[in-house]
Amino acid sequence: MMDARIINPFLAAAIHVLKTMAQVDAKPGKPFLKTDDLAIGDVSAIIGVTGAAQGSMALIFTEQCINHVASNLLGAPFTQVNHEVRDAVGELTNMICGDARRRLAEDGFVLQAGIPTIVSGKGHSVGHIANGPRLAVPFETSQGSFMVEVAFSGSK
Amino acid sequence: MMDARIINPFLAAAIHVLKTMAQVDAKPGKPFLKTDDLAIGDVSAIIGVTGAAQGSMALIFTEQCINHVASNLLGAPFTQVNHEVRDAVGELTNMICGDARRRLAEDGFVLQAGIPTIVSGKGHSVGHIANGPRLAVPFETSQGSFMVEVAFSGSK
Repeated sequence: MMDARIINPFLAAAIHVLKTMAQVDAKPGKPFLKTDDLAIGDVSAIIGVTGAAQGSMALIFTEQCINHVASNLLGAPFTQVNHEVRDAVGELTNMICGDARRRLAEDGFVLQAGIPTIVSGKGHSVGHIANGPRLAVPFETSQGSFMVEVAFSGSK
Repeated sequence: MMDARIINPFLAAAIHVLKTMAQVDAKPGKPFLKTDDLAIGDVSAIIGVTGAAQGSMALIFTEQCINHVASNLLGAPFTQVNHEVRDAVGELTNMICGDARRRLAEDGFVLQAGIPTIVSGKGHSVGHIANGPRLAVPFETSQGSFMVEVAFSGSK
């Protein structure tokens, strides 16, 4: 599968879910192939996928950005990454991964998904040891940035 | 599936892999059900699983412990969490998850696995929003501690 055909459904899903669920306009930058550079964030969620390919998707937020998104999503102001904000990142990951999987399934590329794991910690880094494509898309919102990463094993 | 039947294969796999691959004796503490407390670590790897259940496994190390394990595994001294140490955490996660899946498959509980995502950052926290069992086992080695966590969705 071509790289663009993997990443584009996740890109479209991120825009769609943030817009419809949190009224946030997420403006995508140019998708890029990751080498050994690491994404840096303050709160992330990771979900594993299997089926037509083995891989994972990660959603990596700055604290400013997720507080804004979570405030819109939950209808209450959040100024720090607490339990509710972490849960919101997990739910957004479920929704974005689910929406991307529906888009991929339309092309006959059927994936199953695990459950989100949520990581928080100022300035943590997220990386993969996938031997297949590792793709990332940076997004900008009016209140800071986030990243969507997708990594697949090349061996299956 | 009973909680012990889920966690015990992961517990046995962690002991087996660390012993055979890195000559490290990992002494398990008592497995416990997690509520909303978070595991804290310096370098972690997370792998998603699907199949008979949807879930994830996380391996969460202190820096001291992983430097010790990686030094044994790779046959060279490591004193900080660099690229090779992060890769080692990913490979250990693949091996432990694979070994646990083999043990579970013997009971007819067949899981597929995604690929590991590696997180590093001093004192980051790892949590889940699983609505099913979330189990953790703390381990002690001669050079510090690590944690194995397994979370499953209750809905599938």
